[in-house]
Amino acid sequence: MKESFIYIPEDSDFTLYNIPFGIFRKGDYYAACTRVGDTIVDLHMCMITGIFDELGLEGDIFKRKTLNDFIALGKKVTSDVRIRLQRALEKGGYLDNNIFIDQEIYLISDNVQMILPIRIGDYTDFYSSREHATNVGTMFRDPENALLPNWLHLPVGYHGRASSIVVSGTEIHRPNGQTMPVGSLKPVFGPSKQLDFELEMAFVIGNNTELGSSISVSNAENYIFGLMLFNDWSARDIQKWEYVPLGPFLAKNFASTISPWIIPLEALEPFRVQGPDQQPEPLPYLKSDGQKNYDIQLSVDIITKLGDVKRVSVSNFKYMYWNMNQQLAHHTVNGCNVRVGDLMASGTISGPEPDSYGSMLELCWKGTKPIAMPDGSERKFILDGDTVSMRAWCGKGDIRVGFGECDGKVTGH
Amino acid sequence: MKESFIYIPEDSDFTLYNIPFGIFRKGDYYAACTRVGDTIVDLHMCMITGIFDELGLEGDIFKRKTLNDFIALGKKVTSDVRIRLQRALEKGGYLDNNIFIDQEIYLISDNVQMILPIRIGDYTDFYSSREHATNVGTMFRDPENALLPNWLHLPVGYHGRASSIVVSGTEIHRPNGQTMPVGSLKPVFGPSKQLDFELEMAFVIGNNTELGSSISVSNAENYIFGLMLFNDWSARDIQKWEYVPLGPFLAKNFASTISPWIIPLEALEPFRVQGPDQQPEPLPYLKSDGQKNYDIQLSVDIITKLGDVKRVSVSNFKYMYWNMNQQLAHHTVNGCNVRVGDLMASGTISGPEPDSYGSMLELCWKGTKPIAMPDGSERKFILDGDTVSMRAWCGKGDIRVGFGECDGKVTGH
Repeated sequence: MKESFIYIPEDSDFTLYNIPFGIFRKGDYYAACTRVGDTIVDLHMCMITGIFDELGLEGDIFKRKTLNDFIALGKKVTSDVRIRLQRALEKGGYLDNNIFIDQEIYLISDNVQMILPIRIGDYTDFYSSREHATNVGTMFRDPENALLPNWLHLPVGYHGRASSIVVSGTEIHRPNGQTMPVGSLKPVFGPSKQLDFELEMAFVIGNNTELGSSISVSNAENYIFGLMLFNDWSARDIQKWEYVPLGPFLAKNFASTISPWIIPLEALEPFRVQGPDQQPEPLPYLKSDGQKNYDIQLSVDIITKLGDVKRVSVSNFKYMYWNMNQQLAHHTVNGCNVRVGDLMASGTISGPEPDSYGSMLELCWKGTKPIAMPDGSERKFILDGDTVSMRAWCGKGDIRVGFGECDGKVTGH
Repeated sequence: MKESFIYIPEDSDFTLYNIPFGIFRKGDYYAACTRVGDTIVDLHMCMITGIFDELGLEGDIFKRKTLNDFIALGKKVTSDVRIRLQRALEKGGYLDNNIFIDQEIYLISDNVQMILPIRIGDYTDFYSSREHATNVGTMFRDPENALLPNWLHLPVGYHGRASSIVVSGTEIHRPNGQTMPVGSLKPVFGPSKQLDFELEMAFVIGNNTELGSSISVSNAENYIFGLMLFNDWSARDIQKWEYVPLGPFLAKNFASTISPWIIPLEALEPFRVQGPDQQPEPLPYLKSDGQKNYDIQLSVDIITKLGDVKRVSVSNFKYMYWNMNQQLAHHTVNGCNVRVGDLMASGTISGPEPDSYGSMLELCWKGTKPIAMPDGSERKFILDGDTVSMRAWCGKGDIRVGFGECDGKVTGH
């Protein structure tokens, strides 16, 4: 077991097996950082200690407001940085009992503000959980033909809004919008009455490609820098009225919340698992072998205004039907280029059991099965004052790797 | 009539009434520029002459690789720059017979490369031509109910891919993709057989807004810096198979072509016209009065590999049912933020007559009415080696304002 000289509370997301990347802010000072236990480690200050000296990094690479330039250095370099940090932060490592141990390197996580760590060029949202697509098809179309004809042949996806992706902790404004209530003859305007979350994971692109080129399934992992936890807030009543024929628009683009940490793909290696069997067999450009899914446990809590907590969903990223490599191969098979910092989300991750569904729409089955809250109230959707709090973590023996928080509190107008 | 000391050919897009903004490149040198006749005017060199001295601009504002920072200065400043240029470039103006007239300010347009002039954060595509939506609904759904129920109540739109927007002159790779041919039991993979253009205009956002805030219809023009000509390349066979239920994805994101010039909204003032009557009356947040459409003439030519030219469409931006102010008000009514450099396209601009339709899909009515080419061949869609060449211009008396070229040549794999 890797032990650090920094105190790591039991069940911390941030063991030495993790070494995630983020950007913190303290006053006017910004820097890239990692986290061990509840300690933020300033990577710019680490650089000054000399631990990255042989890597030939630019002197201010960790002093920028996003990680894009760092990620763009490529996996060889970013992995090297991660491994050096891991070693230096071990008990007896270079930074242990070293003259550099002072508050210039280490900060208490509560004393800094974590900000959006990447400049997101384009954001894509997939729809790759079979259980989620089946639930939606059953509720809104035909239970006998819940999956649309294309669903088993390609990872359905669509483009979303990058500007409104915010970091965990940012308040979410309940969106206004146009809806067509059941029985109404005319559309009406007002705050959404069906504000929902969607439990998703997202991956961050690590290399640029040229327009006209493609990424194969077998090469896709080289283009994935790491993963984040993602809440694709959705206004179901707005979505229902607007989405035919061109897809969701205002129902989604008012906000999405991401966790502040990017977990490098390397940290997830021990948690690889086989994905679901794919029948019918995908076309050759989408064929995928081996363990390409990840066993990442997921949870969603609703925390009321007064602080009562209700766990409403427990799911797992391993349920994904289409894996990330297939998503990326499909996305680029037409020659679409990708850029460092692009974000690609999984779509709602629902498991097979009703308590593993990844949205209120499914958990409450279109409002027919409200969830009882600890204070005696009910939820069919999210109310003003509620905080939706998502978590994601992997565990195997001593090895624990978590994603930190992905929280958003909803405010009214 | 405004006359310049620079020669302006008859029917030039670039009279003194225009003064568009772009970015050119010559070797390693990049600068913002405008154009008069066939002469590129280097704005960084203009600055050195002192014509912008009273505006307090940063010294290198015109030496950046995009116009975003310039646009972000706000309309008061950008309009001032435009007016000063207009005056200085007039016969007898400050730059006429001035010691500054040398090749450092003026370049022959053929000798420079125009590049993508903005860093596009997010790109949105609307679907705001009633004729286009009606044609599509008639072909693919029900001629009696061609418009979907939401269409007359809101400007339908969706998010597109920003990374694959390229400047006029960039070659377009025919996309590969998955399709479900009629009569086939299984999807197939290969190059699209139904590559199409979409004739669109796009506007560039001029101010940032905060998440949670909205832009009203009456205030929207203050957020529109200017307009560009836009070709939303589309692969109809890929689109047909993939787009239900989340909208177009790979059918569109392989490439979009824009003209290199941004025409400031002020240059279009003389060409304001009333838009179509809107019945049913839109909800209050979408109500728009006055002349909010623009009389911009549009054309599409297909140029074959051997250089034969066929004009396939003549349309007009004035046909738009939903105007730009309504589009922007709708886009932000849910609190979605916008950023300087975001691009919002109109959707295909089809007019009432069959020769004014803005896509091959409509012009050839799903392939049933092929277009005869000068060389005796036919077109239902775009072939490898074809160049699609769009133009947009306004004319009223002496006043002529054009958009330059929006051209793309299609190459096979």
